[in-house]
Amino acid sequence: MERADFGVRDRTIAFLRDLKERTGCRGFTVGLSGGIDSAVVTKLAADAVGGENVSNIFMPVDSTSRADYECTERMSRMWGTSFKTINIQGPLDDIVSLTGSTERIDIGNIAARIRMNILFNDARRKGNLVLGTSNRSELMMGYFTKFGDGACDAMPICGLYKTQVRQLASLIDVPEDIISKPPSAGLWEGQTDEGDMDITYENLDIILDALDCGKDPKDVVCESISLEDIQRISARVSAMSHKVSPPYRP
Amino acid sequence: MERADFGVRDRTIAFLRDLKERTGCRGFTVGLSGGIDSAVVTKLAADAVGGENVSNIFMPVDSTSRADYECTERMSRMWGTSFKTINIQGPLDDIVSLTGSTERIDIGNIAARIRMNILFNDARRKGNLVLGTSNRSELMMGYFTKFGDGACDAMPICGLYKTQVRQLASLIDVPEDIISKPPSAGLWEGQTDEGDMDITYENLDIILDALDCGKDPKDVVCESISLEDIQRISARVSAMSHKVSPPYRP
Repeated sequence: MERADFGVRDRTIAFLRDLKERTGCRGFTVGLSGGIDSAVVTKLAADAVGGENVSNIFMPVDSTSRADYECTERMSRMWGTSFKTINIQGPLDDIVSLTGSTERIDIGNIAARIRMNILFNDARRKGNLVLGTSNRSELMMGYFTKFGDGACDAMPICGLYKTQVRQLASLIDVPEDIISKPPSAGLWEGQTDEGDMDITYENLDIILDALDCGKDPKDVVCESISLEDIQRISARVSAMSHKVSPPYRP
Repeated sequence: MERADFGVRDRTIAFLRDLKERTGCRGFTVGLSGGIDSAVVTKLAADAVGGENVSNIFMPVDSTSRADYECTERMSRMWGTSFKTINIQGPLDDIVSLTGSTERIDIGNIAARIRMNILFNDARRKGNLVLGTSNRSELMMGYFTKFGDGACDAMPICGLYKTQVRQLASLIDVPEDIISKPPSAGLWEGQTDEGDMDITYENLDIILDALDCGKDPKDVVCESISLEDIQRISARVSAMSHKVSPPYRP
């Protein structure tokens, strides 16, 4: 896997600038969560079209930490984007109760789809496009909500593994505390991506890259990566491919 | 444009049966609105996998007519599907108020995306796939909410123009009152598709089919279809194609 360098940054910025030009959109709407992916997308968008054309919405629930409130607002101020906080606990409680959902996964999906609803509302009213924040590791693993955080008009970092997103973040002055905090979908207390997927991103990305390049899995087995890890990840990647495919048609 | 016949019915049923087999889903979830498209999809799904494996959800708002309550329940009973009514006025009011939306189009989009949220919740919990009800006329015209009613796992009638959906409906015993009522997204009182798009489906489908077959537009000009109609529809079809395309990527 190549290291993300200034070339990657420049190409992504050029892509966003060109996208604004050819679609005639006014700017971009990005859900800012306090995680590294949305921070990277926001900073690249601000560099591409100016912070004044980037609309950030932070959409906490009641249990969201004070720290997330502070760091999202701080990033928006640093980069000159417009910033709005919309607490989604109300509609979340409503839909959870209407559907009788009790499992964490269902509640998390409902929340992700409410956020999508709010982002597209903002984008239509401003003439913006919604930028997705999914990276290549999440997309391959299906680690996102279909039509929730997976829904967007454009995906600027979809070609970068999480490891590369971290490298890029360091180059474009994303705050160190955002880069170093454990990635989490924030759907329940103590949730981490690496816990959910039962592997570190460092090892995951080595496996995903090997699968993508058609390498022999045995070539990436090492002290921290077993053949079983590789088989498990490979099976999941296949099983999840439908989440990034268009709907089935006759 | 070819007339939809029993062959179309049989192929669609075979598609749905095969889809259940190869994805291993338990059945299908379909939002039943009282309109013709969702009635046709529900009936085909029930014929394909048995009504007991079809989950219908009717999702009215406070202003939805009594007639829609009655006809959706009646169809579900006729075809032996499971049926649930979930009034979405609560979360709709919440999200409208959180976003400060006042325009009808924004409120309609919010409602469509709440319905999507509820359908996918039902599908995940039952192990179902969500069937979309968009037809070819709506898809070409972009007459749907992106990630709202446009979001689904499979699109059984996406290849049929509205005119063909009506023909098919008559063949598969969809009640006559459903077939003959003016198509409406039901987002506000008095709304009709034909009013919104400023053309009848009969004329629209002749134009869409001509565009799709690469015919000379002048060949379809007639007493009820002007060259201006054709140009207007053609421009809209081009402008809306992004709604059925995957997200932009670098």
